[in-house]
Amino acid sequence: MSSFWGKNLKLSLFGESHANAIGIVIDGLPAGLLLDEEKIAEEMERRKPQSSLSTARKEADRPEILSGFFNGRTTGTPLSAVIYNGNTRSQDYTSLQDVPRPGHADYTGKIRYGGFQDFRGGGHFSGRLTAPLVFAGSLCKQFLSPLGIEIGAHIANIGAVKDTGFDPVTLDPEMFLSLKGELPFLDREKAAAARQTAEDAAKNGDSVGGSIECAITGLKAGLGDPFFDSAESVLSSLLFSIPAVKGVEFGAGFRMCEAYGSETNDPFVFDETGAVKTASNNNGGILGGITNGMPLIFRTAIKPTASIYQKQQSVSLSKKESVTLQIQGRHDPCIVPRAVPVVEAVAAIAATELVLAEQKTADRWTSEYNKK
Amino acid sequence: MSSFWGKNLKLSLFGESHANAIGIVIDGLPAGLLLDEEKIAEEMERRKPQSSLSTARKEADRPEILSGFFNGRTTGTPLSAVIYNGNTRSQDYTSLQDVPRPGHADYTGKIRYGGFQDFRGGGHFSGRLTAPLVFAGSLCKQFLSPLGIEIGAHIANIGAVKDTGFDPVTLDPEMFLSLKGELPFLDREKAAAARQTAEDAAKNGDSVGGSIECAITGLKAGLGDPFFDSAESVLSSLLFSIPAVKGVEFGAGFRMCEAYGSETNDPFVFDETGAVKTASNNNGGILGGITNGMPLIFRTAIKPTASIYQKQQSVSLSKKESVTLQIQGRHDPCIVPRAVPVVEAVAAIAATELVLAEQKTADRWTSEYNKK
Amino acid sequence: MSSFWGKNLKLSLFGESHANAIGIVIDGLPAGLLLDEEKIAEEMERRKPQSSLSTARKEADRPEILSGFFNGRTTGTPLSAVIYNGNTRSQDYTSLQDVPRPGHADYTGKIRYGGFQDFRGGGHFSGRLTAPLVFAGSLCKQFLSPLGIEIGAHIANIGAVKDTGFDPVTLDPEMFLSLKGELPFLDREKAAAARQTAEDAAKNGDSVGGSIECAITGLKAGLGDPFFDSAESVLSSLLFSIPAVKGVEFGAGFRMCEAYGSETNDPFVFDETGAVKTASNNNGGILGGITNGMPLIFRTAIKPTASIYQKQQSVSLSKKESVTLQIQGRHDPCIVPRAVPVVEAVAAIAATELVLAEQKTADRWTSEYNKK
Amino acid sequence: MSSFWGKNLKLSLFGESHANAIGIVIDGLPAGLLLDEEKIAEEMERRKPQSSLSTARKEADRPEILSGFFNGRTTGTPLSAVIYNGNTRSQDYTSLQDVPRPGHADYTGKIRYGGFQDFRGGGHFSGRLTAPLVFAGSLCKQFLSPLGIEIGAHIANIGAVKDTGFDPVTLDPEMFLSLKGELPFLDREKAAAARQTAEDAAKNGDSVGGSIECAITGLKAGLGDPFFDSAESVLSSLLFSIPAVKGVEFGAGFRMCEAYGSETNDPFVFDETGAVKTASNNNGGILGGITNGMPLIFRTAIKPTASIYQKQQSVSLSKKESVTLQIQGRHDPCIVPRAVPVVEAVAAIAATELVLAEQKTADRWTSEYNKK
Repeated sequence: MSSFWGKNLKLSLFGESHANAIGIVIDGLPAGLLLDEEKIAEEMERRKPQSSLSTARKEADRPEILSGFFNGRTTGTPLSAVIYNGNTRSQDYTSLQDVPRPGHADYTGKIRYGGFQDFRGGGHFSGRLTAPLVFAGSLCKQFLSPLGIEIGAHIANIGAVKDTGFDPVTLDPEMFLSLKGELPFLDREKAAAARQTAEDAAKNGDSVGGSIECAITGLKAGLGDPFFDSAESVLSSLLFSIPAVKGVEFGAGFRMCEAYGSETNDPFVFDETGAVKTASNNNGGILGGITNGMPLIFRTAIKPTASIYQKQQSVSLSKKESVTLQIQGRHDPCIVPRAVPVVEAVAAIAATELVLAEQKTADRWTSEYNKK
Repeated sequence: MSSFWGKNLKLSLFGESHANAIGIVIDGLPAGLLLDEEKIAEEMERRKPQSSLSTARKEADRPEILSGFFNGRTTGTPLSAVIYNGNTRSQDYTSLQDVPRPGHADYTGKIRYGGFQDFRGGGHFSGRLTAPLVFAGSLCKQFLSPLGIEIGAHIANIGAVKDTGFDPVTLDPEMFLSLKGELPFLDREKAAAARQTAEDAAKNGDSVGGSIECAITGLKAGLGDPFFDSAESVLSSLLFSIPAVKGVEFGAGFRMCEAYGSETNDPFVFDETGAVKTASNNNGGILGGITNGMPLIFRTAIKPTASIYQKQQSVSLSKKESVTLQIQGRHDPCIVPRAVPVVEAVAAIAATELVLAEQKTADRWTSEYNKK
Repeated sequence: MSSFWGKNLKLSLFGESHANAIGIVIDGLPAGLLLDEEKIAEEMERRKPQSSLSTARKEADRPEILSGFFNGRTTGTPLSAVIYNGNTRSQDYTSLQDVPRPGHADYTGKIRYGGFQDFRGGGHFSGRLTAPLVFAGSLCKQFLSPLGIEIGAHIANIGAVKDTGFDPVTLDPEMFLSLKGELPFLDREKAAAARQTAEDAAKNGDSVGGSIECAITGLKAGLGDPFFDSAESVLSSLLFSIPAVKGVEFGAGFRMCEAYGSETNDPFVFDETGAVKTASNNNGGILGGITNGMPLIFRTAIKPTASIYQKQQSVSLSKKESVTLQIQGRHDPCIVPRAVPVVEAVAAIAATELVLAEQKTADRWTSEYNKK
Repeated sequence: MSSFWGKNLKLSLFGESHANAIGIVIDGLPAGLLLDEEKIAEEMERRKPQSSLSTARKEADRPEILSGFFNGRTTGTPLSAVIYNGNTRSQDYTSLQDVPRPGHADYTGKIRYGGFQDFRGGGHFSGRLTAPLVFAGSLCKQFLSPLGIEIGAHIANIGAVKDTGFDPVTLDPEMFLSLKGELPFLDREKAAAARQTAEDAAKNGDSVGGSIECAITGLKAGLGDPFFDSAESVLSSLLFSIPAVKGVEFGAGFRMCEAYGSETNDPFVFDETGAVKTASNNNGGILGGITNGMPLIFRTAIKPTASIYQKQQSVSLSKKESVTLQIQGRHDPCIVPRAVPVVEAVAAIAATELVLAEQKTADRWTSEYNKK
């Protein structure tokens, strides 16, 4: 029912890990948008498994655009793309129908779809479904960038290893656009420590969680639609669709609930150009659900990969008895690095929705309609 | 644009603090639902200002049902209700159009609505808008309760004062349904300390933040619609619509991002009735965006009330100069207690949506359609 | 479930004939729209029962605006209005719960709402529900008129009495804006004959059907969104919501299905200003679901009022036996005249949706976003 | 923006005539629906060009299912399918960008999409886009048939040749399910005359219009959601999305507007099984926007194919001068026969939406939820 998202920018996401294909339909991108296929490929590459931290499955992840794209530009009609599934090893998964993996959607998916779901490789719940999202996000980034809107994220922590944070007031997109590599930490020394944490977890047959801080710069003040489509609502509804996301906070977020108003209120000031800014940015660029022109900043909690190789307690649904489960197959010991481009993609999608939903006053409607 | 919410249960929220009225239209509640008007009044009462912690404005908050209600039951057609605004002191607010209050939506609302918004008393951004939500939530609770679904919340912290948490595995609704009073802490001693914290803030002309933990018990496994209408997405989109909410986490939430999979995976077990349960509940009752039959538990961060009486830095938009602002008027030094019924209401609305969206297999469609 | 309509302009309609009130919430009208309350009153007056052709029930139909309206202008937040119900004679209707009136929604409504519907006075199915639609339409007309978009309708026929039609190519809005009176025929002599037809029907305890031709002038080319939101789809979905509408055709409509392409294709020409026009307008201003800049013209079939005073065959649902039914109460022998402002209102709502949904190219997005 | 349709059954349609592919995503079909691929192929075959009446382009039209289908059944997750485009002759169309074809969407599409649309072969406006609709409709028919709901259509007229109509009261689905051949007339002699009419038009370089009568049998009473999702609204919004449809009427439709209520009201009776029926069916199975259990019957006007080979008047948009246009390429002289399966498909989609949207009373919710 809910593979459809959006009001102005609309998405229709489909596919299962071991079905013929996964893909997405994107409707609402303006006609005439010039698309750089290199940039799309770069984003897709970031999400791919790259090293010892990632699953051994080789995924080509090359989206084939089927429609909505002509002479290098969007046509204004729905742009669709598919990624064919290859390199599937379905035999790994069949027994999981009876013995659900802890932390996974095996059990809930079975109940939800009456046992008819394509359970191979996690099916519709597979992390693979985020690949079409990254594709969609890369198109949105190319819509946003000419508007001066840029999106970037870094890993805020992996396990106990914590990165420094974005400066929420002075954040320059050049900084995050240049973040490279499998472990995008602002503090490069922390990247090495984080790798060690993840590798240690892998050695123990375990996995480790982390969090991602993401920023959107260049958003005008005035975007977001109270009551129910606050900027936070639009973003969070997408973020909580990403598998493994269990928490979202904007600006100072949960730290604000232990603070005083005199500490968290962001004073208004003029910057050197005469524009209204805030001297601090505890509200993460959003006041009353509407952007205020400051960098929009949020943090997302990613739980540890549910697939671990240690023995776990589960149940046999058919035999109605407790069993000990030991998972086989190919899994990322730490999913956080690969989630970074997904979080950015989702931020780009949400930012595009917010921009497309911008409202005009009646006078502006009149003057623009009559001008043409 | 976005005062409309929902797919199966639909809401249309309207009103401004000092307009003629605020109200809500609720569509999609099943016909024939018996409504206890006493219970509605009780919920409305919980949201009202009650003591030294709350604004001095006296709000009757008595919703008048206009339609969709006949012979004590819902009719199946849209149920609408209004709350007329009285006791308004509009003169308090006019100057704020030029000098926006830090932490408030004065500035962003002015940009968003081109200066045409009804700015009196916070207008459409006023906390008063949550009263119709509480009304809607009280109807949803009466739909859910006969299904065995109950909703309750407590204050998880106010400033530095932290309550104990719900037991996420054994939680019994009787416990939270009996929580009473202005400061619903599980640990009653903490309630007194929290009151002191809030009163101290008030004395300093300051405000203080807090967080609310909320639980939904009795939800069947299998509710929630991947990809984009995960149970977390449905809940978070509503929670982040509530003014002052800046963070949402499910289950162990942000704690999971510093943990290992071996710690956070919830083992499957059978309970004494033979039902599938999990031995722990770090996932807050949701796996893969779908309920797993365990208590659904989440925590919401509420920022300190933006209205404080200390001098603050702001700007005069007309004069283009910095000014010092000192707010007058009537404001809650700690909004957290009054947010508790709002969070519960929103949880009830989301739970109703999840229940109404439950899907049936093709076979069940066939047998039910032909039976009639 | 479906008292909500729209994507850019959103409506939430509520109420029953004998409930406390009927009303509507309108979201998405641009902020700052100056509203002339006189013009609203004029539209409401047109829908009121006026003469021997109409029901004897006196309806004040004065909408009270509750929100979204400030200093004479829309605020950009949801504009809501209610019309309180007075002058209700509920005793007329109770027996109809058991013996459904032919042609009415008594039977289908009872099944649909499980018998819990408010059946008094037709309840949610009452023609009274069109009053809030006329209110919403009058606001939309005031949005459209400054854009040069005007809407007008005339009665195309009542029974055998047929009016001449709009000239679909040269139609001047001045012509239809000056149409007055209870029976807006272009050919005034036909108005007298139509009155006679309706009065004769009334004398026979009967009712008579008719049709309405409506035009929207001033729409730019390029409005309407294939595939599913064609201009015809948007209009028809609203028109078929109006009680008693059983047919809708655009331009030459059903006449086109007996014709040849060489007769119906509208040749392209330049007008004296150099603008692209068509020499004929068989397509009613719409090609491929998108407006072409010609007057948008459609015709709507209105069935005879279902309430007639002749004896009719029905059934007693409780006794499971056939009965002869003779309806009492107050009813219009010909509903067509009062449907004229409703059809116009719905056309105004649809036109507003089409205008608000207009799309911009990527380049225009970039230049407009950066300008601000 | 509007290639997305539906609330319970959701469609996302994409593609252009000469792009890589056309296709559709279908979300909301119940899990576990057994699909007979033979039946899908049969429906696709009906839409294919078959004879002298149809375009010479050979279209394989074999949908490849990409997802949502596992072990012969729907999975409950989105079912997607694509039809790759082959056999395209793009050189035929390039000049039409400057000289729009009368009756076509060349001009309106160019304005709507800012000139960036894929204009080859009609692009997104091509009749080819109806192929994925027929695919979706064939799935819906397989959902509906086990519920006892069948859908069938015949050609009501081509030019001056008129078929007899369905008996709206006694209609037996066996009758229409056995209709075969390129020209499904109830009166087989009329089929020959209609063929002659179409062939004569073709010889003259002309085209001819027609209409299609369609029935849905087996729908329960009580389906359809006033106010805005009346059964007529749901159907008409889809029917008016089909290219070339310019009129829709339900039951006696436009004939009702020249009639008296005593003629058109359908008397209620009990049938031999004790079920409530109506003795006539002028309302086409719908009262107050809700099905009444009688056959749902409607008629759709199809305009003559816009592509004709006679010389026509048009304009050169670049040179700003009038030109005479003579169309080349491959076109159907009468599109009506190929529109029959499309109308049926759309009826199946709408009927599925109506069935899936069926509402339950609160008591039934309680008993069903607690049973499980």
